[in-house]
Amino acid sequence: MLDMSKLTLYGSSISGNCLKGKWAADLFGLSYDWVEIDILAGESRTDAFLAMNPNGQVPVLQIPGEGVLDQSNAILIYLAETAGSDLIPANAVDRARMMSWLFWEQYNHEASIAVRRFRKAYLGLPDADIDPQLLPKGYSALERMEAALDGQDWICGDAMTLADIALVAYTRVAHEGGYELARFPLVLDWIIRTETKLDIPHAREGL
Amino acid sequence: MLDMSKLTLYGSSISGNCLKGKWAADLFGLSYDWVEIDILAGESRTDAFLAMNPNGQVPVLQIPGEGVLDQSNAILIYLAETAGSDLIPANAVDRARMMSWLFWEQYNHEASIAVRRFRKAYLGLPDADIDPQLLPKGYSALERMEAALDGQDWICGDAMTLADIALVAYTRVAHEGGYELARFPLVLDWIIRTETKLDIPHAREGL
Repeated sequence: MLDMSKLTLYGSSISGNCLKGKWAADLFGLSYDWVEIDILAGESRTDAFLAMNPNGQVPVLQIPGEGVLDQSNAILIYLAETAGSDLIPANAVDRARMMSWLFWEQYNHEASIAVRRFRKAYLGLPDADIDPQLLPKGYSALERMEAALDGQDWICGDAMTLADIALVAYTRVAHEGGYELARFPLVLDWIIRTETKLDIPHAREGL
Repeated sequence: MLDMSKLTLYGSSISGNCLKGKWAADLFGLSYDWVEIDILAGESRTDAFLAMNPNGQVPVLQIPGEGVLDQSNAILIYLAETAGSDLIPANAVDRARMMSWLFWEQYNHEASIAVRRFRKAYLGLPDADIDPQLLPKGYSALERMEAALDGQDWICGDAMTLADIALVAYTRVAHEGGYELARFPLVLDWIIRTETKLDIPHAREGL
């Protein structure tokens, strides 16, 4: 039985979007239950799941007495605010820039790199059956990150923010989508830096 | 000459993403300059524009002494915080739910409805040359909005939030993308309600 007085995170361990919330909750020392949802087996489409989240998506955060919250980056923001984390910049402009990266992550990065990785590595599709735009779009996203990391350790500047957690989720497994991370040495260093802060294993090739 | 001591919003008047910031700044009574960028004529790809925003996208908000900020919904959040607007809920869970809708707007709603509208109405592509998934994806987004508005006046509940501004931007012109808004009576009422609050003209068919 789940403890309904605690946060519950419903997610799939193969989904970077789901792992974001898990890593953040662990980093912040928040108490929560993790419920594994096998998305490949259709567990996010069952009647019971849809009764909880009609959108049929993971991750979902169940908040005691408050119902559910979805969208991975909204969950990240909520967990950081709840924990009083300094991963949300106090300065309004810095905070807005972090928000900008979070929206960019979903629209440009996740929508290309995560989608290609899922189709290639989990659906097992041959390259010829995958939208050919996803490869150049993903590389364009990685190029923007490489440029952002020129002269600074973290995506938003000298300090780690939620943008690093959001962006590392699929960047660290981009090779599973057919992207050559070796082309992006600053991104590679940043992946290790972020994985180390989050205390999670290295996922990339050659380590 | 632009007044560099004021906010400057670079945007295209045919882009809902750009209009969001304009409407919000007007609603909040913020002082700003609007610089029209003709995206169809390539004005967001000139050397001068790219020097300001290497991402080559509008909208861009120039903040006095602070450089630029992009991503339409990050701009919305920044403007609302700057103005002390109550369109950002004070309660943490309500605020997180609004954030969830803002991320959903970009990933699910804009990425289908705005994209199809641009290809159909501005690039003049015939339906056969437009990704066939955009129509059902956009209708699915409109269905979710219709369900959300059942029993409440605004997307997040009884009060208007930034989610209403973000979502109305392309919902009010969805018919230009080939979507039949008449199927969604609650959405139609909400469009008028939101346009009235924003003091902007009605854009939809049949009015």
